[in-house]
Amino acid sequence: MTIQRIGIMTGGGDCPGLNPVIRGAVLKARALGWQILGIEDATSGLIDLDYRSPKGNRWLGPDDVRGIISKGGTILGTSNKSDPFHYVVEENGIKKESDVSDRVVANYHKLKLDGLISIGGDGSMRIAQKLIDKGMNIIGVPKTIDHDLGSTDYTFGFNTAVQTATDAIDRLHDTAESHDRVMVVELMGRNAGWITLHAALAGAAHVCLIPELPYRLEPILERINERRARGNPYSLIAIAEGARPAAGDQSHEGPKALGQMQRLFGAGYKLAAALEPRLDMEVRVTVLGHLQRGGTPTQFDRILGTRFGSAAVEAARTGHWNHMVALRTPEIVLVPISEAIADPHNVSPSDSMVRAARDVGITFGDE
Amino acid sequence: MTIQRIGIMTGGGDCPGLNPVIRGAVLKARALGWQILGIEDATSGLIDLDYRSPKGNRWLGPDDVRGIISKGGTILGTSNKSDPFHYVVEENGIKKESDVSDRVVANYHKLKLDGLISIGGDGSMRIAQKLIDKGMNIIGVPKTIDHDLGSTDYTFGFNTAVQTATDAIDRLHDTAESHDRVMVVELMGRNAGWITLHAALAGAAHVCLIPELPYRLEPILERINERRARGNPYSLIAIAEGARPAAGDQSHEGPKALGQMQRLFGAGYKLAAALEPRLDMEVRVTVLGHLQRGGTPTQFDRILGTRFGSAAVEAARTGHWNHMVALRTPEIVLVPISEAIADPHNVSPSDSMVRAARDVGITFGDE
Amino acid sequence: MTIQRIGIMTGGGDCPGLNPVIRGAVLKARALGWQILGIEDATSGLIDLDYRSPKGNRWLGPDDVRGIISKGGTILGTSNKSDPFHYVVEENGIKKESDVSDRVVANYHKLKLDGLISIGGDGSMRIAQKLIDKGMNIIGVPKTIDHDLGSTDYTFGFNTAVQTATDAIDRLHDTAESHDRVMVVELMGRNAGWITLHAALAGAAHVCLIPELPYRLEPILERINERRARGNPYSLIAIAEGARPAAGDQSHEGPKALGQMQRLFGAGYKLAAALEPRLDMEVRVTVLGHLQRGGTPTQFDRILGTRFGSAAVEAARTGHWNHMVALRTPEIVLVPISEAIADPHNVSPSDSMVRAARDVGITFGDE
Amino acid sequence: MTIQRIGIMTGGGDCPGLNPVIRGAVLKARALGWQILGIEDATSGLIDLDYRSPKGNRWLGPDDVRGIISKGGTILGTSNKSDPFHYVVEENGIKKESDVSDRVVANYHKLKLDGLISIGGDGSMRIAQKLIDKGMNIIGVPKTIDHDLGSTDYTFGFNTAVQTATDAIDRLHDTAESHDRVMVVELMGRNAGWITLHAALAGAAHVCLIPELPYRLEPILERINERRARGNPYSLIAIAEGARPAAGDQSHEGPKALGQMQRLFGAGYKLAAALEPRLDMEVRVTVLGHLQRGGTPTQFDRILGTRFGSAAVEAARTGHWNHMVALRTPEIVLVPISEAIADPHNVSPSDSMVRAARDVGITFGDE
Repeated sequence: MTIQRIGIMTGGGDCPGLNPVIRGAVLKARALGWQILGIEDATSGLIDLDYRSPKGNRWLGPDDVRGIISKGGTILGTSNKSDPFHYVVEENGIKKESDVSDRVVANYHKLKLDGLISIGGDGSMRIAQKLIDKGMNIIGVPKTIDHDLGSTDYTFGFNTAVQTATDAIDRLHDTAESHDRVMVVELMGRNAGWITLHAALAGAAHVCLIPELPYRLEPILERINERRARGNPYSLIAIAEGARPAAGDQSHEGPKALGQMQRLFGAGYKLAAALEPRLDMEVRVTVLGHLQRGGTPTQFDRILGTRFGSAAVEAARTGHWNHMVALRTPEIVLVPISEAIADPHNVSPSDSMVRAARDVGITFGDE
Repeated sequence: MTIQRIGIMTGGGDCPGLNPVIRGAVLKARALGWQILGIEDATSGLIDLDYRSPKGNRWLGPDDVRGIISKGGTILGTSNKSDPFHYVVEENGIKKESDVSDRVVANYHKLKLDGLISIGGDGSMRIAQKLIDKGMNIIGVPKTIDHDLGSTDYTFGFNTAVQTATDAIDRLHDTAESHDRVMVVELMGRNAGWITLHAALAGAAHVCLIPELPYRLEPILERINERRARGNPYSLIAIAEGARPAAGDQSHEGPKALGQMQRLFGAGYKLAAALEPRLDMEVRVTVLGHLQRGGTPTQFDRILGTRFGSAAVEAARTGHWNHMVALRTPEIVLVPISEAIADPHNVSPSDSMVRAARDVGITFGDE
Repeated sequence: MTIQRIGIMTGGGDCPGLNPVIRGAVLKARALGWQILGIEDATSGLIDLDYRSPKGNRWLGPDDVRGIISKGGTILGTSNKSDPFHYVVEENGIKKESDVSDRVVANYHKLKLDGLISIGGDGSMRIAQKLIDKGMNIIGVPKTIDHDLGSTDYTFGFNTAVQTATDAIDRLHDTAESHDRVMVVELMGRNAGWITLHAALAGAAHVCLIPELPYRLEPILERINERRARGNPYSLIAIAEGARPAAGDQSHEGPKALGQMQRLFGAGYKLAAALEPRLDMEVRVTVLGHLQRGGTPTQFDRILGTRFGSAAVEAARTGHWNHMVALRTPEIVLVPISEAIADPHNVSPSDSMVRAARDVGITFGDE
Repeated sequence: MTIQRIGIMTGGGDCPGLNPVIRGAVLKARALGWQILGIEDATSGLIDLDYRSPKGNRWLGPDDVRGIISKGGTILGTSNKSDPFHYVVEENGIKKESDVSDRVVANYHKLKLDGLISIGGDGSMRIAQKLIDKGMNIIGVPKTIDHDLGSTDYTFGFNTAVQTATDAIDRLHDTAESHDRVMVVELMGRNAGWITLHAALAGAAHVCLIPELPYRLEPILERINERRARGNPYSLIAIAEGARPAAGDQSHEGPKALGQMQRLFGAGYKLAAALEPRLDMEVRVTVLGHLQRGGTPTQFDRILGTRFGSAAVEAARTGHWNHMVALRTPEIVLVPISEAIADPHNVSPSDSMVRAARDVGITFGDE
């Protein structure tokens, strides 16, 4: 099969490194003499060829990717609402879900694409698999800021997010120490605690709370009080947004408002509300939130993104449709998309990173 | 009067630049052959000479200030609870306020101090004035991260805080643009909007909401929609924590939960809750909070802090007790503390910075 | 006079903040309903209307200035070789200087420009003055990274350059201290020592050598040896590229190679070659060079640039041709270009910054 | 064997991440109840127990390592002149090399050390091996900023150095583009080109010259001219300090001065001198030098350093003397020091990183 034109799109939440992938793919495709079409807002540009928000699909050349290696986000836009198998349309004021995947396949052929590079997470890869089953040629590029995919050593975005979180913790140390406070910083990670674990280690936090290791208040209070007793009247707690108390830990009980607080404010505020009355110290919360998704990608993520982008085009060239690029340090390899999807990666209590963290005195609240 | 020993202390909320002030004062005092005593946690170390949290008062030499110019926070610690005229002590479980200022004066003499450098904000300066009235020799160094003091061109900390806020806005642009979202970033400033105004200008925000200019929703919605109409389906709003809707603007009305939300979450979440139902767009909030207080000081704040510290010692040497150092670009001058206190500095609608902001298309919601 | 179209151009060496000026001017001009023409590579685009390197002159709108506030350099390009009064053309392999200023004036009229915003340094302002004398309407925006203009408190670019230099000195401290070395860092400043003076203060250097204060080796050696004697076997020297030994200081004499070294390598290497044989320590040199010109502008320079840009358009609107915008903290004012040119600004030995530097133990080598 | 006290030392050139290793080892050793002695300036503190520069050997506890995770350099100092097998002593003004290794072994026993953690590069590991042969117990921690060791996926310091280099290249793009210049940036790497290769990829350089791939001028000139022809009149060249022209490439010939220039100035200036006469463009050089060694370690290097430090203590606990810790992503493993030494790691022309670089248009000059 001789390839003449391929498409490329980015799906799911944005993260630093998407633009390097796009650039890597565009430069390599152009070197091969291919045309490469940037598709707007994930599958939106394939569901509706006239889709414009703001730009619509467009052919990409070197000029379009100049300077983007240092830019966060994605020049193609992205969307969480463009699953063609469950597409929500509003008709007469009523929202209705329908399957528009046939339209996507038809448009793919109408554009005379020989294949598609889909950069995205779990959700995007599942959609890709189903479009493959309908006859489309797809190469996957894994994107998850959470480091929660087992089939690749790293995905881009994670390194930058941990750096951002570490920089934030560095700042909070200053103010925590000056004011003798407990500082709680809530980081990304609904199901996987990797960002928090790495940032806690790099930021020299004293407590690290992650979804995989439900926590009890007591060991946390002990750690803070032991620090005070040794003349360090401040502590720093890194908590993942998905961290939660262990079942049976009664310590979070309290006025009804707490439940609501949890729902409204998230894990950090909830923890602070439980800690403060049990300590004679000020507890302050910072929620890092979207700051972790933006910013110029670190060199690590720029390189990984560039390599993924060029390797995805190479995979297309050699006909490895249906595969996803992955990092097996130091090489880029190909993994069947179906296998990759089925390979989640979570923190285990016996992970060597967890042990290293305990070695340097970090408490997980599960002791 | 021949000076042999002086004290130095930092009061109120911490901000980047305190350590450069301490360093500047210590190095200059040592060069003069004076001894300089670092007093712990604002007046705490004077109220109780045995106070230790964690270190207690200590004599400072060059080794103690080595490397601290690049460190946020304050090596002396600070406190918001050490007003000797309204000091809260707990006795038999009951909190009780008392005036311990005589003890402060007595301890000051007991330490044989010839004078005191008090680095602090509005509150600290008022306390300093009252201690001066009781016979203590004090030189003030103004500290307010909010840029809300009229008697000095700048105070240290402000420059760093605006830089931190600008860096954060830069990051949020990436993700806002990739997702076609409205991003709301809440910045410091309960009564003064300077941080938000500067960061909005430097960060190229589209909307800037500050305490001095109560806002209405309508011009904000117009700005966002006008941007969408011109093919820019995202917007960035910088809002000060003290910003509030104009009286009579009905637009914030809604379910009772909104009132509670305002109290619990602050200005950013409240605005988002009001905007989202009026736009067909996702609105996301980031609260920068304590991140603005930490971090290595910018060169500007390091230099200003160093100059303030050395000028404070020079003021003591020349007997200018009762004065505060201040910046009149490019010189450091002395201002009576009493005058300085009475000189607040707020954003006025006719300020040239506000006009410049409007010139580049920033909406204040007061149009 | 009703203005309909103006031109804007950037001349001389690039520095951080040029793009914010362009953006500020474009947004304000557009708000007034004017057209604004970006002229390529300083006067090059006026000397030759077909000039393309790479883009040529173009009308600028909001889309052209989106995102540039955070970008170093200038989107219009700049040049040091486009003085129309001394323009060098190559004819038959022979370079020849000629006066093409009439062509510039003719092209200015051909483009139907009502005025021109010229962003540039000393050289650009002198050219502007001569073009004004030939009947063109010009508003000046001062650009000098060296802080060497007396008529404005600050120019953009300086703040960023000092920050870059300070960050570099922070890094060199680490390695100097680990290896017990003398680290020499050469900074910008051929005639004015402001960047070096500021960076030395902010970076806690031990020695600061600037063009305005010719140095002798002896006090430098003393400072380094005194530090060693007190248990600090490393020192950090900030030296401006234009710093030079005092006349009569024999200490730099030595093998002939030294003279050549000075010419080839500059002030830093020359100093190191003189110091090393007189100390039993390693002396290492870092030349910061072009790094000081690039990078994202600090918030200070972004704001100053934006204000200068919008104020320049306002000056055009109110007919203040022949003036230059300037900062008198906190206001933007207008100064006749002719006055501004005649107002150099150099470090004087009695400057309060120099005294502050000496207060904290910085040696200038002139003691 | 029950361990009670161990020593730790850092040797060779400093790099970011040394302090995290020390901290990791100290915290873990303390948790095990061991004493841990910091040895000053590599083996210097073992050669002479009274060695002080500035501090001398000292027992390390949690207070000594507080805050150092974010600090570049090494709190223990380091030295390139402390090989006990070839130790240079000055006697009566005459330098003389002698073998003082027996004294090191004797002092090791005198200090009652049960083992030693030696953090260092190739040279340090060879010394360690010889001390092991004399009966000392040593665990190695590999340190090479150049990424030139085959037995570990990464060493700390490399990630930070590449980040620093990438940030520098980002800055140079601004000024190169504004002035239509060729910018040459010389990076670390005498024998291994990894830093330059990574930074070229991450910084979107156009040309990458490394020791492993001797270059010819012609393909470099072609790349620059081809860029000009396509309307990009600027180029950025990353060159390793150890890069050199291919044998037989006559293009570097020229006035004798060139040879001297190479020796004095290094690879970057030499290349520039050869390029400039062959292009009608300005060529400017920046030598990054020592900036690459300093600075706060990236999160990656902090984590890797911490893990190495704690794993080294664990290796001692389990009696794995004579081994070196290493990273096999994502695990820390142990490798015999003897094997590790014999495993250099250089860029090969067929490396997948080189291919990725060529894919995105980077020229190596070897085409």
